[in-house]
Amino acid sequence: MKIAVFNDYRVGIVDGEQLFDVTSAFPALLQDLPKQRINWMIAHWDEMKGKLEQAKKSAAAVAIAGVTLLPPNPGAGHVFAAPANYQKHIGELGDRAVTKAGRTAREQGFFLMAPGSMVGAGGAILIPKGSSRRFDHESELAVIVGRAGRNIPRSQAMDYVFGYACLIDATMRIEPGVGEEERSMRKSFESFTPVGPYLVTADEVPHPGALQNRLWVNGELKQQANTKDMIVGIAELIELISSVLPISPGDVIASGTPEGVGPFKPGDVVKIEIESVGSMTLPVRECEERAPRAY
Amino acid sequence: MKIAVFNDYRVGIVDGEQLFDVTSAFPALLQDLPKQRINWMIAHWDEMKGKLEQAKKSAAAVAIAGVTLLPPNPGAGHVFAAPANYQKHIGELGDRAVTKAGRTAREQGFFLMAPGSMVGAGGAILIPKGSSRRFDHESELAVIVGRAGRNIPRSQAMDYVFGYACLIDATMRIEPGVGEEERSMRKSFESFTPVGPYLVTADEVPHPGALQNRLWVNGELKQQANTKDMIVGIAELIELISSVLPISPGDVIASGTPEGVGPFKPGDVVKIEIESVGSMTLPVRECEERAPRAY
Repeated sequence: MKIAVFNDYRVGIVDGEQLFDVTSAFPALLQDLPKQRINWMIAHWDEMKGKLEQAKKSAAAVAIAGVTLLPPNPGAGHVFAAPANYQKHIGELGDRAVTKAGRTAREQGFFLMAPGSMVGAGGAILIPKGSSRRFDHESELAVIVGRAGRNIPRSQAMDYVFGYACLIDATMRIEPGVGEEERSMRKSFESFTPVGPYLVTADEVPHPGALQNRLWVNGELKQQANTKDMIVGIAELIELISSVLPISPGDVIASGTPEGVGPFKPGDVVKIEIESVGSMTLPVRECEERAPRAY
Repeated sequence: MKIAVFNDYRVGIVDGEQLFDVTSAFPALLQDLPKQRINWMIAHWDEMKGKLEQAKKSAAAVAIAGVTLLPPNPGAGHVFAAPANYQKHIGELGDRAVTKAGRTAREQGFFLMAPGSMVGAGGAILIPKGSSRRFDHESELAVIVGRAGRNIPRSQAMDYVFGYACLIDATMRIEPGVGEEERSMRKSFESFTPVGPYLVTADEVPHPGALQNRLWVNGELKQQANTKDMIVGIAELIELISSVLPISPGDVIASGTPEGVGPFKPGDVVKIEIESVGSMTLPVRECEERAPRAY
């Protein structure tokens, strides 16, 4: 199933170019906490799956092109992320990299990105107004957690996956001597974590460890890799994160970027496509408002 | 007002040694999302304040000693944190520090801690079973956000504060050559962010920029400072964070630790006390279960 969140946090089932609004299948109690709908849906999937399929039958079809797609779990409690998880990416950033040679996600563990930095396929990547810093794209497979767990061995970890989405990890690079901010901040600017276009349930992604992942800027192919080249695979990432703290339904795991990371600027258009998962295209714009602090 | 979350996410108003259970003042819709109650309360404070006061009048008093205190906002969307925010702390960790000399929270910005790492005053700090790493205490004032905002100038920032709590930032230190994990991971182990004992509304903390902050291990005073010595004050922290992304009601800001950071081990007892805000004491224990990954 492909699940979309759109407009004012309504929920839809995607079928081809159409979307069926199944918001009515959710308990009324969620009308006032609409961002929590997907966390709720995942936590109650055994009952909600049938309710959604039932609601789809009587729902009116809407053209996807006519709605605004939001991140497929806008209320995610955590966005965990793997640094340095593809061998060919390590080292390509020179002195803009914060990762020392030879240190992968296995040694560095995970970092966090702010859930509030997520944006959907219907949004734009917004660069701070007037900034002279470099901003890069990173193309990643997002894993969405399906069950609560702690200390999950990797042999059981895939049972904790609910589904997948595309994720662009937009990053303000460090600039030695000018700006060397915390990694979790440089990746948490509003709109710097596009996720989407939909949440694709795991049954539709039979080979998550062997997916083509590509990213284009202005139509030019910049990143091209396969998730089989991840150093720390999805199951080991879940083992790693859950060795530190509990994971919860709806948590997002950004599994790391391959080589080909490069800059974008206002006016550019960034497209990501991951096999079996989907594709989305976002424009890059400058923020309309100047922040009280310059970057 | 002092607001406590206890037992199975019930909400209480604290009055001396007693607590009045005002959970009935919350909409029924939150019975199934009990962790969201405090986010909801803060977002609807204009109406909820009176409802809570009314509910307190008919509520039965319960001895605080008889309940389990949870973090005062267990559903916080973000836990932002200021690194290197007291001059005398910078440098005291030698080669276990990740902060270079001369770089304060103003240069480094903020980092993130996992909301799932929070624990309340009724909990314990749990160290990974069998670990040989060093774990330290950091004593901090937590600021709880009251209103949504973006690009908030520091001159208006205090209007966005809902209240305060004590926060212990427990940290697994880097050990050069052995473990140099991401900062946001080393501080996000389950239970590594004790917050509490209550959420104290801002009207009860008239001078947040001049509060004594002390921390003891086994009764021995280890950290003693005043929030007036913060390099980046509360208003500037709010300006900084909201220059990057929107802040939301219920978000937590850990404002940084003063000097005196030091280790603790299983069997120790850690006490934090902040003037006007309160105090809490947590035991340090080893996790009962060994994680599939060793630290």
